[in-house]
Amino acid sequence: MAAQNLSFVLEGIHKVKFEDRPIPELKDPHGVLVNVKFTGICGSDVHYWEHGSIGQFVVKDPMVLGHESSGVISKIGSAVTTLKVGDRVAMEPGIPCRRCEPCKAGKYNLCEKMAFAATPPYDGTLAKYYVLPEDFCYKLPENLSLQEGALMEPLGVAVHIVKQASVKPGQSVVVFGAGPVGLLCCAVARAFGASKVIAVDIQKPRLEFAQNYAATATFEPGKVAAEENAARLIAENGLGSGADVVIDASGAEPSVHTGIHVLRTGGTYVQGGMGRSEITFPIMAACTKELNIKGSFRYGSGDYKLAVELVASGKVNVKQLITGVVNFQDAEQAFKEVKAGKGIKTLISGIEA
Amino acid sequence: MAAQNLSFVLEGIHKVKFEDRPIPELKDPHGVLVNVKFTGICGSDVHYWEHGSIGQFVVKDPMVLGHESSGVISKIGSAVTTLKVGDRVAMEPGIPCRRCEPCKAGKYNLCEKMAFAATPPYDGTLAKYYVLPEDFCYKLPENLSLQEGALMEPLGVAVHIVKQASVKPGQSVVVFGAGPVGLLCCAVARAFGASKVIAVDIQKPRLEFAQNYAATATFEPGKVAAEENAARLIAENGLGSGADVVIDASGAEPSVHTGIHVLRTGGTYVQGGMGRSEITFPIMAACTKELNIKGSFRYGSGDYKLAVELVASGKVNVKQLITGVVNFQDAEQAFKEVKAGKGIKTLISGIEA
Amino acid sequence: MAAQNLSFVLEGIHKVKFEDRPIPELKDPHGVLVNVKFTGICGSDVHYWEHGSIGQFVVKDPMVLGHESSGVISKIGSAVTTLKVGDRVAMEPGIPCRRCEPCKAGKYNLCEKMAFAATPPYDGTLAKYYVLPEDFCYKLPENLSLQEGALMEPLGVAVHIVKQASVKPGQSVVVFGAGPVGLLCCAVARAFGASKVIAVDIQKPRLEFAQNYAATATFEPGKVAAEENAARLIAENGLGSGADVVIDASGAEPSVHTGIHVLRTGGTYVQGGMGRSEITFPIMAACTKELNIKGSFRYGSGDYKLAVELVASGKVNVKQLITGVVNFQDAEQAFKEVKAGKGIKTLISGIEA
Amino acid sequence: MAAQNLSFVLEGIHKVKFEDRPIPELKDPHGVLVNVKFTGICGSDVHYWEHGSIGQFVVKDPMVLGHESSGVISKIGSAVTTLKVGDRVAMEPGIPCRRCEPCKAGKYNLCEKMAFAATPPYDGTLAKYYVLPEDFCYKLPENLSLQEGALMEPLGVAVHIVKQASVKPGQSVVVFGAGPVGLLCCAVARAFGASKVIAVDIQKPRLEFAQNYAATATFEPGKVAAEENAARLIAENGLGSGADVVIDASGAEPSVHTGIHVLRTGGTYVQGGMGRSEITFPIMAACTKELNIKGSFRYGSGDYKLAVELVASGKVNVKQLITGVVNFQDAEQAFKEVKAGKGIKTLISGIEA
Repeated sequence: MAAQNLSFVLEGIHKVKFEDRPIPELKDPHGVLVNVKFTGICGSDVHYWEHGSIGQFVVKDPMVLGHESSGVISKIGSAVTTLKVGDRVAMEPGIPCRRCEPCKAGKYNLCEKMAFAATPPYDGTLAKYYVLPEDFCYKLPENLSLQEGALMEPLGVAVHIVKQASVKPGQSVVVFGAGPVGLLCCAVARAFGASKVIAVDIQKPRLEFAQNYAATATFEPGKVAAEENAARLIAENGLGSGADVVIDASGAEPSVHTGIHVLRTGGTYVQGGMGRSEITFPIMAACTKELNIKGSFRYGSGDYKLAVELVASGKVNVKQLITGVVNFQDAEQAFKEVKAGKGIKTLISGIEA
Repeated sequence: MAAQNLSFVLEGIHKVKFEDRPIPELKDPHGVLVNVKFTGICGSDVHYWEHGSIGQFVVKDPMVLGHESSGVISKIGSAVTTLKVGDRVAMEPGIPCRRCEPCKAGKYNLCEKMAFAATPPYDGTLAKYYVLPEDFCYKLPENLSLQEGALMEPLGVAVHIVKQASVKPGQSVVVFGAGPVGLLCCAVARAFGASKVIAVDIQKPRLEFAQNYAATATFEPGKVAAEENAARLIAENGLGSGADVVIDASGAEPSVHTGIHVLRTGGTYVQGGMGRSEITFPIMAACTKELNIKGSFRYGSGDYKLAVELVASGKVNVKQLITGVVNFQDAEQAFKEVKAGKGIKTLISGIEA
Repeated sequence: MAAQNLSFVLEGIHKVKFEDRPIPELKDPHGVLVNVKFTGICGSDVHYWEHGSIGQFVVKDPMVLGHESSGVISKIGSAVTTLKVGDRVAMEPGIPCRRCEPCKAGKYNLCEKMAFAATPPYDGTLAKYYVLPEDFCYKLPENLSLQEGALMEPLGVAVHIVKQASVKPGQSVVVFGAGPVGLLCCAVARAFGASKVIAVDIQKPRLEFAQNYAATATFEPGKVAAEENAARLIAENGLGSGADVVIDASGAEPSVHTGIHVLRTGGTYVQGGMGRSEITFPIMAACTKELNIKGSFRYGSGDYKLAVELVASGKVNVKQLITGVVNFQDAEQAFKEVKAGKGIKTLISGIEA
Repeated sequence: MAAQNLSFVLEGIHKVKFEDRPIPELKDPHGVLVNVKFTGICGSDVHYWEHGSIGQFVVKDPMVLGHESSGVISKIGSAVTTLKVGDRVAMEPGIPCRRCEPCKAGKYNLCEKMAFAATPPYDGTLAKYYVLPEDFCYKLPENLSLQEGALMEPLGVAVHIVKQASVKPGQSVVVFGAGPVGLLCCAVARAFGASKVIAVDIQKPRLEFAQNYAATATFEPGKVAAEENAARLIAENGLGSGADVVIDASGAEPSVHTGIHVLRTGGTYVQGGMGRSEITFPIMAACTKELNIKGSFRYGSGDYKLAVELVASGKVNVKQLITGVVNFQDAEQAFKEVKAGKGIKTLISGIEA
């Protein structure tokens, strides 16, 4: 196949196609052209494929999917100094404007004009080539494979969540939801020095995986009130007056409730998982316990860099999460398997340059 | 009446009496005996009087009401060095254990063994005399009256809320609820340098009071969706991408919703008002805007000191909020008036020593 | 004079000339061309004029001086949306790369590739025209004059210093050095809610100015040990166990010493003034009192915006500091007067477009 | 020997004696009587023994030495709930007043009325028995020995230093001085997630120990300018624009200088080691690089608890530092050996109850 830049394009709900697009030009002197090597599939990709939209983001025009990628530098702009052709990189897929207030205040993940891969109207990375600015490509150390490189995206999400939670050595952390992001939050929390990391999920096999992966303990909630589950979680894990930190990577209302009740006074709660827009919420408990409740959105300054460092230093293992790799032409099959809940993280191979 | 220590005691729902109790002894060498001079009535006092309980706190035995007080030092313990008989003081009414983790970590308002006036089983300050440790009495500067001194309690609450909100010079602050605490939050936010302070309430007279008091603008929500009220509030006040800070001093669900939608990305929300235990909550907006949401509970390290300083320096006016003073023997009448929503803050005079 | 872009150029030590340069082109679509209206003279400008260098920065090629400027938008780039021709603006004169780690972490004042006006090799603003990116021009509100606009630069320096010091309402702040930046630090500290702001200088007239301007008290150090001056300063101002915050805007060794000794345990010291590279320093006092000592360098995220807001809201007065205005052709005369210590701040008028 | 409470008492410079004192009474209902089991010798103990004073602290009356101790609970006060006779504990030897501003603000290590063991006029722990409040005794987990328990004191110092430095995962940390505290700082910094921890010392054997203990690299400064050593340290360790954090545990002027020059812009420096009161200091580098410079004094809220947790979890090894144990009656011999620089940490056994 003499394709220029074969791309996996979403046209409508459950309607995808392969399209050969022109190779993108390097207009920005700081830009680089990356030959994409591996791309993980994320819940948001699957959501667009199934629903054609996420919240206010609606796919109107055909859009290339994918944003969890690694690749090899294929061409560099005239001002590029830190990368050269052939370098293996993890690709950070959201490019901020660098000019708005959040950008200049160190919160570029909150940029008002963010161009994020596979978020309409921006094309994603499931293509042969993708253009990024130099500083959004992170050179992989020798001991990181390109497959691991593709995992830097969900790991970046987890790093950002754990930073938002200000996890400190010796703390107890309860993570609700043992999918890829929840699992990575467990691993990152331990790398940040948490002494107890308790994974919570309603699926036993996920709890088993979590236990073997990075959790120090697991908890399967019963069909009882949130307060009751919280009390049992605290008692079983010797958390005394409650957990220091709760991370919700599930987006489920019962998790949120149990999480609030599991926290000690002055504890920190981070909402990392996406779910229903509105839920009932135990606000008075949050008020009288003087909790710190924070959202976490994507990743920002230093997150990808730390993600690479955590894996390179052996503190976080991402290989264990890669449960399947499919060829580029089987991309749709991969979406179906992810939707069906098969494995933890499926990667799609890129197209050789 | 040759009363020793006449006290205003709650015996049951809507059942109060005056009882002459013995003058408390000074057991702690750091303790002082205060002749109470003025006591404000707070929503929580009225709540106990009407319901006999607040959440898990149930009045089982007769309990003296009142906790917003000022007084004059009547006797000092052997180790007291900073106060002398005759000193006029604002009385901080919650005594922490000083030994638990929150106490030693600088969060004594979260003390696990707090003894708080008029919170069962601890008696309140509506008595002739009350005992406090030296360091919970704040000497009033010459330019502060004892009436103003009684207002240091709700002002301490507002100071704590505004500190939790980390209000910074130049910021925009929206305060929901224009009762005593909401009004004081407006005043404290301005003292902290906020450039726009918008008071929100559903009662026009309260908004008028707020406008004349400390708000730079007011907003009366319409009977429309929270998003719509939020959009109008932002537009009318030129808040651009949203407010920097929202303080809820109302506890009402529509306020919470509107507050979340009024905030810019990365903004801060503080829940200061008490209301229903659980409400529906726009959690995804909180997550994707990466909000900081915090509870605020009572007051802690440095709050009373700053409250006194803000009034002494003329930055906050509390006199304007005192809309009535009744005699000690008319205490119950005062509760009825507060319940009926008369005035802003009613004080009860103490009994001359 | 049919000058295109008359500029005031430093050629060598004490060697300046007027040169008519071409009007700069707008290459960046986000750029604007500003017709400079007023430019203040700063100690660093005078230092380059006198010495040809500051530390590692050496003037090798002819360089336009000046960086404290305001002006009127004369032309806008194709992507500019927030400014139009004719807008009056304060000009932030240091343009960061927006791509390095400090830039993306919200510390663009620490940018590794900063292009700062009148810091070699970058030309300054003492010219008819100057090009800036849109987001480094701050539209002046109607109640701010262009003369005041030129003062936003030293005010931005003071805002950054006071932010570094984390000055909080009710705190005591001691400012060493009552030159323009020290005076502005006094004013900003009060706007941040400091209750005591004590200006320290060895020149009586400066102390008098400070007292009439924004200090709540002044202190003239005696020719005694730093500890002795510190003890007297604390006693005279009722600072108890010491000041909460010390700002040094003098760069003088005795100030630094006195400042460290004036602080309470846990207090904060900010070095804002430039002086000798190395001085003797009471490091053990800093250690055992657990001080927070910080440098402050130029201004960054949000500083100019807040500077404009502080003046617009009447919290800081900059007019009082403008003690002279000279014509563009008399620029060198202005340098001589500043060098001689005449007045507080001298402005140089720009050239009408 | 039928001693009641044999104690090792400093009477004057190099003049010590054993004295049998009465067993202290438990006056405070929250107090416990501890039978001291092991006591480490610290530089400050040796300094009092050699000089009779440290700074303003002068030994006027005979004083028991020692403050790095562990022991077994021998008797408990009537209000004690968390400890029982026979419990093995690490002993935190400084008791704050719990009432002053720093105490209530969460900084009890800065207490104005601290009663610290073996700091005049307070007796130390080199006695058979010592009284402490319940909450300053930390129960040792089963996997911690009483010898390790005595090391919680210097480890608490290191924990406090590393917390002051806000060491974060992935950061580079340079520690000057490879004595007990410096070595423990290396270990704690790694437990906090530092990816590079470089120990600096002028003694090769100490560097070898550090390398085998917890440093990821070592550096031996040459007899050249501080800037030159800094440049070589940066280059040899691939620190790019400089280290994120510098900890000085040496108190030596050349270390301080090199440390300041080794830091990146915006980096953090913590002064943990004691040395001369005043040194020359590169203050302009600190200013223009906007460094955060902090003192660290003893340990405070949560430090001992974390110290115990770090050892119990295997993240920090303290056994390796214990290079000798002497009998109580040979205490003076131990001081001589420490003075002579023998080993890393020498413990003195206590007297069996």
